[in-house]
Amino acid sequence: MRMSELSTAAGLPVATLKYYLREGLLHPGAATAVNQAVYDDTHVRRARLVRALLELGNLQLGEIKKVLAAADDESVSLHDAFGVAQDAMVPARDRSGAAYADALADVDAFVQRHRLHVRADAGVRGMLADALVAMRSGGWQFDLAEFDERMPAVVAQAVSEVGQLPPDGRAGQMEASVIGTIAYEVATSALRRLALEHASWRRFGR
Amino acid sequence: MRMSELSTAAGLPVATLKYYLREGLLHPGAATAVNQAVYDDTHVRRARLVRALLELGNLQLGEIKKVLAAADDESVSLHDAFGVAQDAMVPARDRSGAAYADALADVDAFVQRHRLHVRADAGVRGMLADALVAMRSGGWQFDLAEFDERMPAVVAQAVSEVGQLPPDGRAGQMEASVIGTIAYEVATSALRRLALEHASWRRFGR
Repeated sequence: MRMSELSTAAGLPVATLKYYLREGLLHPGAATAVNQAVYDDTHVRRARLVRALLELGNLQLGEIKKVLAAADDESVSLHDAFGVAQDAMVPARDRSGAAYADALADVDAFVQRHRLHVRADAGVRGMLADALVAMRSGGWQFDLAEFDERMPAVVAQAVSEVGQLPPDGRAGQMEASVIGTIAYEVATSALRRLALEHASWRRFGR
Repeated sequence: MRMSELSTAAGLPVATLKYYLREGLLHPGAATAVNQAVYDDTHVRRARLVRALLELGNLQLGEIKKVLAAADDESVSLHDAFGVAQDAMVPARDRSGAAYADALADVDAFVQRHRLHVRADAGVRGMLADALVAMRSGGWQFDLAEFDERMPAVVAQAVSEVGQLPPDGRAGQMEASVIGTIAYEVATSALRRLALEHASWRRFGR
């Protein structure tokens, strides 16, 4: 397909696609003439992935390139590539100090308690610690045990979702899992915010 | 307290606090001498709020100022101030086009179905539409009905949380609700990512 058709298929303006090409976020099409190229489904999928990482995931260009490199490097196992993508989706931040040490210890205990196979240096541990530190600094005596009851259902849901990834097609699996991770988080956050606005109306707005 | 004590109490470096003061994100302390001022608990709470909005919420300075202005303006009802804060937490984006029109109609139907009191122009509607558009462009035939069963529990949880906000102290209520909203979202996203890494290990990593 031509650039204009890629634009329609991916739901993105031509100018945005050209920006992705310039930044190396999208692989070049097959040249058919000077200044002309054709694109295929791999470009459509990749453009959607980049858009999700940029707009929903709030990732920086450097982080996006790490995710794409892991997706494309066949020598990295799929599980390891998921790990790279997961880590890229966690903001870099100074996590030193006593409050973080406590929070990270709580995260470790939570992971062990639920027998989760999560890398010792996985970025997501720091992300959960971020939330704990923020809540505690806001005055809540927040304990991860409050999530114990719910966690088995969260794990079952994740196992089901990962089980539904297509059995082959590494690029497709990576793209589906990354978009699924981010979009699902935005959706559940939005549902909670709908409920909070409703709750605020009930208490303060009537 | 002095600046150094504020730094300890808020868990933020002095340089960061000075940056907040310069940008008007933190109100000036009471001057005690040239180049010296004292701070109080309102500064501690405000500094934590700004940090949560910046670091966990990924908000731009302009959006943070809108949230703070709504928190401080006593002529705005608390419910309306919550609405301003909610809207500031949704990224601005072009939500025109057929895919968005479909998604926004689905959101409207969901809000009506669950009898939620949510403003017709609330930004969170666009946020939920963002997730739907991303999932559908990724090839999922995603339907909000999948959340119907869970939504009453989400609403009950939100009503309970808003009910636990302290009965007076407008600034404290705003700060607690904004930090609570953002930190809780980061926490639940992180729990899901822990589960996804575990699920990836089960399917691809063993």
